[in-house]
Amino acid sequence: MADPIEFLFDFSSPYAYVAAHRIEGLGDKHGREVIWQPFLLGAMFQVNGQRPLKDQALKWDYSSHDLARVARLYDVPWTLPEKFPIATQAVGRAFYWINDQDVALAKKFALAAYQEYFAKGIDIRPKEVVAGVAAGLGLDGDACLAAMDDENYKQKLKDVTAGAIERNVCGSPFFFIGSEPFWGNDRLEMIDLWLEKGGW
Amino acid sequence: MADPIEFLFDFSSPYAYVAAHRIEGLGDKHGREVIWQPFLLGAMFQVNGQRPLKDQALKWDYSSHDLARVARLYDVPWTLPEKFPIATQAVGRAFYWINDQDVALAKKFALAAYQEYFAKGIDIRPKEVVAGVAAGLGLDGDACLAAMDDENYKQKLKDVTAGAIERNVCGSPFFFIGSEPFWGNDRLEMIDLWLEKGGW
Repeated sequence: MADPIEFLFDFSSPYAYVAAHRIEGLGDKHGREVIWQPFLLGAMFQVNGQRPLKDQALKWDYSSHDLARVARLYDVPWTLPEKFPIATQAVGRAFYWINDQDVALAKKFALAAYQEYFAKGIDIRPKEVVAGVAAGLGLDGDACLAAMDDENYKQKLKDVTAGAIERNVCGSPFFFIGSEPFWGNDRLEMIDLWLEKGGW
Repeated sequence: MADPIEFLFDFSSPYAYVAAHRIEGLGDKHGREVIWQPFLLGAMFQVNGQRPLKDQALKWDYSSHDLARVARLYDVPWTLPEKFPIATQAVGRAFYWINDQDVALAKKFALAAYQEYFAKGIDIRPKEVVAGVAAGLGLDGDACLAAMDDENYKQKLKDVTAGAIERNVCGSPFFFIGSEPFWGNDRLEMIDLWLEKGGW
């Protein structure tokens, strides 16, 4: 079996939002499964002493311009939410609850939650908002609400985050093909080449 | 006249080293002049409160792996110099001294100085080393040594750096096409598209 593409992302990461719209196409092109794994970028930043992009004035000045340009290029709707960045515990737990039931549906949920936040600008921290996104996909909203308070899904999200830190993940989106790491939406072209050539 | 591609770089920036090998090909492809402008990344970091990549443990862990991979991809010789990063005042002043005489030769000098540092791993801080690179291109080594102590070239490098900070340059390499900013070797594909489409 060829290595899958592991896709690590935070729901509050705009470049990961764009990458989420592109990664399945790349997986399909090369016959690779894509494994979606939301994690908590804020927790990773705390461990590493990193700061959110928005707190770095000059980088943010450039990045906010670049984000709009990248979104236009890939035809992804884009708005900078009023509340940004945000903690993404609730939506991350809900993702893993859905993922346990139906992997493809969890990917649809992730895209829908991303749209809610980065296309409509709606704050996705409230559990009711997250449950509403799940209900929109035919899932049981009350069960989703319960899952977000479930110790198992709290722990799952912590475990994925700890695992990402252990593998030296340093930002979002981050990808692995086997042990080969790729950081950033702008590495998707390189991943494409990597899969085409079998590495170099 | 179509806008040129402005190429802002620091001689101690590995991703700019790789970009320096690629940017003229991109300019040729689109009939755009490339204006090379070395500046002092360290001075910019001080103003912005940024830290060198190598001082950010996890990012450096990833980037040192990525740099070797990027260099292999573009067939650029690569070694991590023992002294890294370094202050690049001497080589920057020498560049502008040559640039005043012959713009094409200054680009050759920049590539030769980069090779000295990132292909051979030789510290290019000593003025004698820089003058040796210039002499290797048929320039007068003694005159080059004098230029590196010339107030005019000291001021020129300061002015370019101040200008970069004023234009919100936040890293190296950095590019402008008119007022449109692009940051990173990994934005060259986007610059290619930008010039092809005339923006979007």
